Amino acid sequence: MEPGRISAMMGQLWSPIVAVTSRWQGRSNAQIAVSVGAASVVPEKPRVVVQIYKENYSWELIRSAGALALNFLRPDQLQLIKTFGLTSGLTEDKMSGVAHRIGPTGSPILEDCWGYLECRVINAMDGGDMTCFLGEVVDGETVSEDGPLWWPQARRVIPAEWNREWDTRINEQIQKSRQRMDQIDYTPWKPTE
Amino acid sequence: MEPGRISAMMGQLWSPIVAVTSRWQGRSNAQIAVSVGAASVVPEKPRVVVQIYKENYSWELIRSAGALALNFLRPDQLQLIKTFGLTSGLTEDKMSGVAHRIGPTGSPILEDCWGYLECRVINAMDGGDMTCFLGEVVDGETVSEDGPLWWPQARRVIPAEWNREWDTRINEQIQKSRQRMDQIDYTPWKPTE
Repeated sequence: MEPGRISAMMGQLWSPIVAVTSRWQGRSNAQIAVSVGAASVVPEKPRVVVQIYKENYSWELIRSAGALALNFLRPDQLQLIKTFGLTSGLTEDKMSGVAHRIGPTGSPILEDCWGYLECRVINAMDGGDMTCFLGEVVDGETVSEDGPLWWPQARRVIPAEWNREWDTRINEQIQKSRQRMDQIDYTPWKPTE
Repeated sequence: MEPGRISAMMGQLWSPIVAVTSRWQGRSNAQIAVSVGAASVVPEKPRVVVQIYKENYSWELIRSAGALALNFLRPDQLQLIKTFGLTSGLTEDKMSGVAHRIGPTGSPILEDCWGYLECRVINAMDGGDMTCFLGEVVDGETVSEDGPLWWPQARRVIPAEWNREWDTRINEQIQKSRQRMDQIDYTPWKPTE
C-alpha cells in the first residue's frame, strides 16, 4: 500500500504536544510526545494511553517508576520543543534549567504549561518499537487559559534549523522502529511493586 | 480531584469520529468510536491503537476475527451516528442498509466515507472496562476530499433527540465502566490462530 493513500487519516490521529516527564532514583527526564489518547469515560476516574519509544531514556524511567506526567505545552512554549525534544536525557539533564516540582507520584511537574496530568501506570502493551502505557490520572490541573500546542502548528513557526533537527531525529527513529516493531513481546508488564 | 480541573485537557485527547466495523462467522457490525490513535512513525508500516468497550457486540467480533476496520465519517454523514451509534448490533443488523463490501482481512468497508483503514489486530491490552487493540493497517484509502467529523462538531448539529439518546447511552456506559475498570487482567491476548 502506498503510504500517501492514508496519510491524511493518519495525520489526524496524533495528540497535542506534551512534555512527558518521569523520575526514578533521583534521575529526572522530559521528552516530547504526540502519542497520547483519552482512555476513560468516567469523569472521576480519568485515564490516558501514552506511547513511548523503547530507545528513549524516559522509557526506562517510566517502567521503573510506574509513573509519568503529561505536561501540555502552550502555543508560546516553543523553546521547550528544543530543550526536551532535540536533546537526549542520556547525555544532558534536560530538566535542570526548567522550573518544576516533584508531584505526589514522584514525577516532575512543569510549573509553567497549559496544564498537566500526573499518572500512575496501571497496564502496558508491547508494540515492538514502543510500549503503550495505560495511565490512571491521579492529579492534574489546567494551569493557563490558552489552548494546547499542536505539532503541525509548531512546525510552521519554529526555526528552520529545529525542523531539520527534528526531521533527522524522526528519520533515525524510523530506522530503529523498522528493526524492532515486528518483535512484539506478549508477556504482560506490571508496575514495579 | 475535581474532574473539571482537567476536563479541558481530556477533551483534546479524543479522535475524529470513526465507524469501527468487524465481522466474524457471517455476522457483521459497526459501532461509533472516538478512541483511536496513531501508533507508528514508519510510513510503510502504519499502525493504530483502538479502544473498544467490552460490553459492545463489536468487541466479541474483533477479538474473534483478530481484525477491524476504521471508517472515518465525513461531516455530512451524521445519519450514521444514529445508525451505528444509537442502536445495538445485538438486536439489529446495523450494516444491512449501508452500502459496504468485505475487505481482504474480512472486515466490512463502507463504500461511502472520508476514508478507511483496514487493520489486523497484532496485540491488545486490558483496560478493565475496555480492550486497547494494536492494529496493523494492511489496506486503506482516502475516499473523499472532505476532512473528518469530530464529535464536538457533530453534537452541535445533530437533532436534540439524538443528543439525549447519546447522553443516555454514555451514562449507561459510565455505570458499567465504573464497575469494571479496576478489574484489569494482565493476561496477554493473542489473535485467533
